[in-house]
Amino acid sequence: MRFTSEQRLDDGVLEREFTLGEIPGILWTPESVSAPAPLILLGHPGGLRKMYPRLAERARHSVAEGFATATIELPGGGDRPRSAAAEEARADLLRALGAGEPVNDEIVDRLVLPLVEKAVPEWRTALDALLSLPEIGGPVGFSGGVISIGIRLAVVEPRISAALLFAGSFVPRTMFEEARQVTVPLQVLLQWDDEGNDRQLALDLFDAFGSREKTLHANMGGHTGVPQFEGDAGNRFFARHLK
Amino acid sequence: MRFTSEQRLDDGVLEREFTLGEIPGILWTPESVSAPAPLILLGHPGGLRKMYPRLAERARHSVAEGFATATIELPGGGDRPRSAAAEEARADLLRALGAGEPVNDEIVDRLVLPLVEKAVPEWRTALDALLSLPEIGGPVGFSGGVISIGIRLAVVEPRISAALLFAGSFVPRTMFEEARQVTVPLQVLLQWDDEGNDRQLALDLFDAFGSREKTLHANMGGHTGVPQFEGDAGNRFFARHLK
Repeated sequence: MRFTSEQRLDDGVLEREFTLGEIPGILWTPESVSAPAPLILLGHPGGLRKMYPRLAERARHSVAEGFATATIELPGGGDRPRSAAAEEARADLLRALGAGEPVNDEIVDRLVLPLVEKAVPEWRTALDALLSLPEIGGPVGFSGGVISIGIRLAVVEPRISAALLFAGSFVPRTMFEEARQVTVPLQVLLQWDDEGNDRQLALDLFDAFGSREKTLHANMGGHTGVPQFEGDAGNRFFARHLK
Repeated sequence: MRFTSEQRLDDGVLEREFTLGEIPGILWTPESVSAPAPLILLGHPGGLRKMYPRLAERARHSVAEGFATATIELPGGGDRPRSAAAEEARADLLRALGAGEPVNDEIVDRLVLPLVEKAVPEWRTALDALLSLPEIGGPVGFSGGVISIGIRLAVVEPRISAALLFAGSFVPRTMFEEARQVTVPLQVLLQWDDEGNDRQLALDLFDAFGSREKTLHANMGGHTGVPQFEGDAGNRFFARHLK
């Protein structure tokens, strides 16, 4: 892990860009800490540069409550090498959506499963590096999407203690089986009229999770319309489980 | 409105019992107020004495955040005169539930609609009386069940500015039409495995509400298992809309 830039934002937030081998990432921490801060990993759909404004806003909101937050670029996202198979799956998905056709399971599998396979070990490597910093301690939460990455991480990575998952992306059928193995406390965000997301499938997925404590927050509006107050609700969820 | 008893609870809460004609009620207010407090009406399934511990806990939690809260006994609840028709409907309901039969719409209509017809004008009368007290101001929220009473109140009573509704009771089909007319901000609580409540019907009802801002909070567990943290979430919802 190599820090490549550092800037102080207002509100006492220190933002540092880093690389982890070929993978770029960003770490936000409180400028001054008296004890190692619990860490929230910020999930996103890929494309750090495009997602930066929204990620930074989420990060600053969490840092203000005493959390460290970090994110890394997804495989194929931003300037990272694209896989021909993923590009083809994405093109097939866009074609189906554009034609108003149902998106069949086979396309979703081709799009999401290889991404999960590749991304999850990278997040775990990032976790090793982040937790070795003196200003960061455990426990660790995952917040955001891609929801399938969050599910797999929650299943295979024992250092994840709580997850706030955004039900805003296509989910392969096989992930329902993995969802049953998730046992950490969950908060699931659902946008009721998400253009690219099947509401019933999201409700079925919520039902499938094995966690004893799980809460669904459904709000009106489309994919990008998550209300601002869910930022506070997320902080309170993580405060209950990471502090 | 006549106050019949008064006691100071710990935490600076003043609890006063009152009668409004034949209807008993309870009012909780901050012991010292600098300005008239916004009011939250606490809905419940009837039976003030039995419900007291839970109502008082909800009230104290809200008073601590600067709200006044009040509740009245429902028609047929507690010591109030029972209606033969309502008792018969309740017996038919219990019989159907006991036999594991589906509860048909006709029973639900007989049980709930006359209750709504009778209770809503009483709540409005209580509102007149409560808002005439110098220590209480507007705006007003409704919190709890019976959800059909909350729906009707939100439709006919313009002084209701926000409602936190508990999807924990049977809902007549005609209430879906009224739900479409609700426009105030809503937070709807759903217990995912509520024994006496059809989950799909509750989701359909949430979908039906006409409010532009509506949020569903679904949690694990049965009817009485609403997690404690929903108390905080409710306060934050009302703080956004009543302050």
